[in-house]
Amino acid sequence: MHSDFIFPIRVYYEDTDSGGVVYHASYLKFMERARTEFLRHIGYTYETAAVENKLFVVRSAQIEYLKPAKHDDLLHIVTRIITTSKVSVTFEQIICSAQDEKLIFCVGTIKVVCVNAVIMRPCALPQSLLTEI
Amino acid sequence: MHSDFIFPIRVYYEDTDSGGVVYHASYLKFMERARTEFLRHIGYTYETAAVENKLFVVRSAQIEYLKPAKHDDLLHIVTRIITTSKVSVTFEQIICSAQDEKLIFCVGTIKVVCVNAVIMRPCALPQSLLTEI
Amino acid sequence: MHSDFIFPIRVYYEDTDSGGVVYHASYLKFMERARTEFLRHIGYTYETAAVENKLFVVRSAQIEYLKPAKHDDLLHIVTRIITTSKVSVTFEQIICSAQDEKLIFCVGTIKVVCVNAVIMRPCALPQSLLTEI
Amino acid sequence: MHSDFIFPIRVYYEDTDSGGVVYHASYLKFMERARTEFLRHIGYTYETAAVENKLFVVRSAQIEYLKPAKHDDLLHIVTRIITTSKVSVTFEQIICSAQDEKLIFCVGTIKVVCVNAVIMRPCALPQSLLTEI
Repeated sequence: MHSDFIFPIRVYYEDTDSGGVVYHASYLKFMERARTEFLRHIGYTYETAAVENKLFVVRSAQIEYLKPAKHDDLLHIVTRIITTSKVSVTFEQIICSAQDEKLIFCVGTIKVVCVNAVIMRPCALPQSLLTEI
Repeated sequence: MHSDFIFPIRVYYEDTDSGGVVYHASYLKFMERARTEFLRHIGYTYETAAVENKLFVVRSAQIEYLKPAKHDDLLHIVTRIITTSKVSVTFEQIICSAQDEKLIFCVGTIKVVCVNAVIMRPCALPQSLLTEI
Repeated sequence: MHSDFIFPIRVYYEDTDSGGVVYHASYLKFMERARTEFLRHIGYTYETAAVENKLFVVRSAQIEYLKPAKHDDLLHIVTRIITTSKVSVTFEQIICSAQDEKLIFCVGTIKVVCVNAVIMRPCALPQSLLTEI
Repeated sequence: MHSDFIFPIRVYYEDTDSGGVVYHASYLKFMERARTEFLRHIGYTYETAAVENKLFVVRSAQIEYLKPAKHDDLLHIVTRIITTSKVSVTFEQIICSAQDEKLIFCVGTIKVVCVNAVIMRPCALPQSLLTEI
């Protein structure tokens, strides 16, 4: 059982749009960076995945945009696993201000499926990952 | 009452990732391009919005990823309005192959809120838009 | 011998930044879209490239940013080949307003190398392409 | 006089394309992140810039792509100033492997102009910055 994993991300110009705030699709990128670092944190890297011919593919995403983050903001991406199945993991991810965790910009529920990279079909989650989560 | 609006988009390298398929956040970009062209199609441009000090902001997004689109694919983004409130519009958007509309890559429900660009608070949808939809 | 190839691109929010203008790296994306459509126009698609195991890789880029394009602008990407070698093609690409071709936003010189996709080493440009340009 | 500033960046899926490597425009994003952190490092933040109504705008970019970086690579962005004028700063930026600084992926020369954010015209570099560099 792991506690929440917190990953910091700085907002750069590339992440914003001319509305003056973070572009809505950029939050999905931030969430993926954080999931990758979460997996690395618990000992599962893309290198391991490649050796095992496994690939993680996003199956669904639900995002609520609550407040707009801005250029140069320092964000915290809080990541936790809420459910797993034989072939999938569902994450809850909260993006908040690094200075004030009550200032929440965005909340997402992201379901990721493990697929065999050769035949591109769902396959069992890696054992090494299951023992960690 | 409008029928579905279909907007074609070609997949370029910028939209893909090294997993060999379209990157999951790129579909959100495609959907926004299609909503913008949908509004232009019914006579509502960003120019009009700017004059009226109105801005459309994504409030929530739910996306199901069904099949992966690939580099150089020609896609159709099918856009329709499913509900409106005083201050918001909810779109259903289907991304399918331009050659075969039964080959669906991705389905999204996107809720967009109209905000006053000065005070950044929700405000009434533009009248000209309401009469059109 | 081909005359200039003109490809229109609309600026969406994804292409801009909170400075209020098109993000500088977005112009490189626009240029690649236009090169892809230029090749398709003269009969050379990525499908053909894949069959021949050939891949086009950017080797160098020089870009002058002259004026900022804005959200919702309609651009023309003007593309021409200025030199070729056995393994490379150098393009000049001008990004201007679709309404006024004298309003130039950005000029680029992009050198692209043809590589064998298996061994990832430079290889001869496709014959079918050479006869076209 | 400052020595080279080194900023680490991890490559995520968003930065790659289906050619299996980092997308060529992504290196421009990495370079801007590093310039931003370079300025923060010497005490000049975007907050200061905003107070002074100053904005940094890319005027030209020259990039040589030497070797392709890949997904999950850890990069070092090495940034140094090579010249300044009254209104501009020219950076040399080298992107190499964090594990092996001799493995250079990409080299760029980026000229940035300081503009007055209100009238959008070149203006003097901030004094506080000049004394630092």
